[in-house]
Amino acid sequence: MSGAGTNTTLIASGRPGPVIILVEPQLAENIGMVARAMANFGLSELRLVKPRDGWPSGGGLPKGAQQAASGATHILTQAALFGDVPAAIADLNIVFATTARERGQMKRVMTPAEAMPEVAARIGAGQRAGILFGRERTGLENEEVSLADAILSFPVDPAFASLNLAQAVLLTGYAWFQASQGDAAPITGTVGEPARRESLLSLIDFVTGELDRIGYFHPEKRDGMVQNLRDILIRRGMSEQDVRSLRGALVALVRGRG
Amino acid sequence: MSGAGTNTTLIASGRPGPVIILVEPQLAENIGMVARAMANFGLSELRLVKPRDGWPSGGGLPKGAQQAASGATHILTQAALFGDVPAAIADLNIVFATTARERGQMKRVMTPAEAMPEVAARIGAGQRAGILFGRERTGLENEEVSLADAILSFPVDPAFASLNLAQAVLLTGYAWFQASQGDAAPITGTVGEPARRESLLSLIDFVTGELDRIGYFHPEKRDGMVQNLRDILIRRGMSEQDVRSLRGALVALVRGRG
Repeated sequence: MSGAGTNTTLIASGRPGPVIILVEPQLAENIGMVARAMANFGLSELRLVKPRDGWPSGGGLPKGAQQAASGATHILTQAALFGDVPAAIADLNIVFATTARERGQMKRVMTPAEAMPEVAARIGAGQRAGILFGRERTGLENEEVSLADAILSFPVDPAFASLNLAQAVLLTGYAWFQASQGDAAPITGTVGEPARRESLLSLIDFVTGELDRIGYFHPEKRDGMVQNLRDILIRRGMSEQDVRSLRGALVALVRGRG
Repeated sequence: MSGAGTNTTLIASGRPGPVIILVEPQLAENIGMVARAMANFGLSELRLVKPRDGWPSGGGLPKGAQQAASGATHILTQAALFGDVPAAIADLNIVFATTARERGQMKRVMTPAEAMPEVAARIGAGQRAGILFGRERTGLENEEVSLADAILSFPVDPAFASLNLAQAVLLTGYAWFQASQGDAAPITGTVGEPARRESLLSLIDFVTGELDRIGYFHPEKRDGMVQNLRDILIRRGMSEQDVRSLRGALVALVRGRG
């Protein structure tokens, strides 16, 4: 058994996150998948309370765990091992227990989206936070839940509420990331700024001029039809590049017919 | 190949959800895990575009898929098979393509939390929505992405952005559920209403009275110490039951010493 010492859990931005604590996890593969889910959201401190099949105390990792971690090996090699839940949460200031079942305990029940802003604020104030996840089949025992400040429960369809271990950690990490980093996609779109109105109107003039030239409009319907075309072309939210591309295609069509 | 016909995707509350479309999934086990993740958030309509190992057209399911679905078998048995992406999205009004890579495409990039309120509004207005998920290793092809209205991308740590198929579906379902059902835990807490101030003050009077009786306070510090105790006991946010339980324990302590 070794404690986690003074490690802090750093994410890409350098901000520490909550500690993930697995209580008596059964399958090494699940521990690996948890590590992968943690890495997706920049969490890095993993604690294991009596994993069923043990855990190597230095050196290699269980094969199933390493494979399932899919590159998040650093989390597994730094995982700390504990003999019971009180030892695993001894240095923490705020602790949540995850459960999908009614416990009849005198605890607040919070969703990840409700809890994580508080966790982020507490961590920002220098406190340490941790989240307990129970055994694959049976979850946390009531005595373990009673050690937590509050219950963390996931907003799922009550008719199908069972989440596996890595999925529960994934949703927790997602909510943590949103609370601490905001909801920003890692990639950016290339839609471009909306076109200047001048470019759009010039395109519309070109199209209506060509259509006038070939006698496309019924004279008594022309005003309405032009307005429809104008609405269609303006409503697209086209960029300058879009307008140029579309104009190029239309010019080619006109020439092909000329 | 068979289309999905006029099925609607109903969740527990009877509200239809977006269709989940897997493009050339490789492993039956992953299809099963996707079904499980869908069921967690009340999604039920699954479409498969050319699964690598085929898909039985009636009767049994691939063994790995059924096992991984962990009870969400109804989603697998109702899954519809398609020969290409255009056929799989033909009846949809709004389509998102998921990707973690920059595509250089002229598309909006949205996170699930940004996109799902729009999806919920469109579905509420009677439209049908779908979300494309690519192959396990290589994702969607650019040509497939270009068929979508917008790109859906997940707010993850850019240093570890790879999500597996079921995890991507899980986060999508979670965001959909939050947008359409709100963020409510499936279980309720039993914290109870906060105690009436009368009960709290009565407890505080009892404690200070007993401490006076045994000469616990330094006379010159009494006021400050009583105020500290009052702050500590009031700050707990105790319920009536909490106050009764604590008072019972304190009375017993006093009697034990008397």
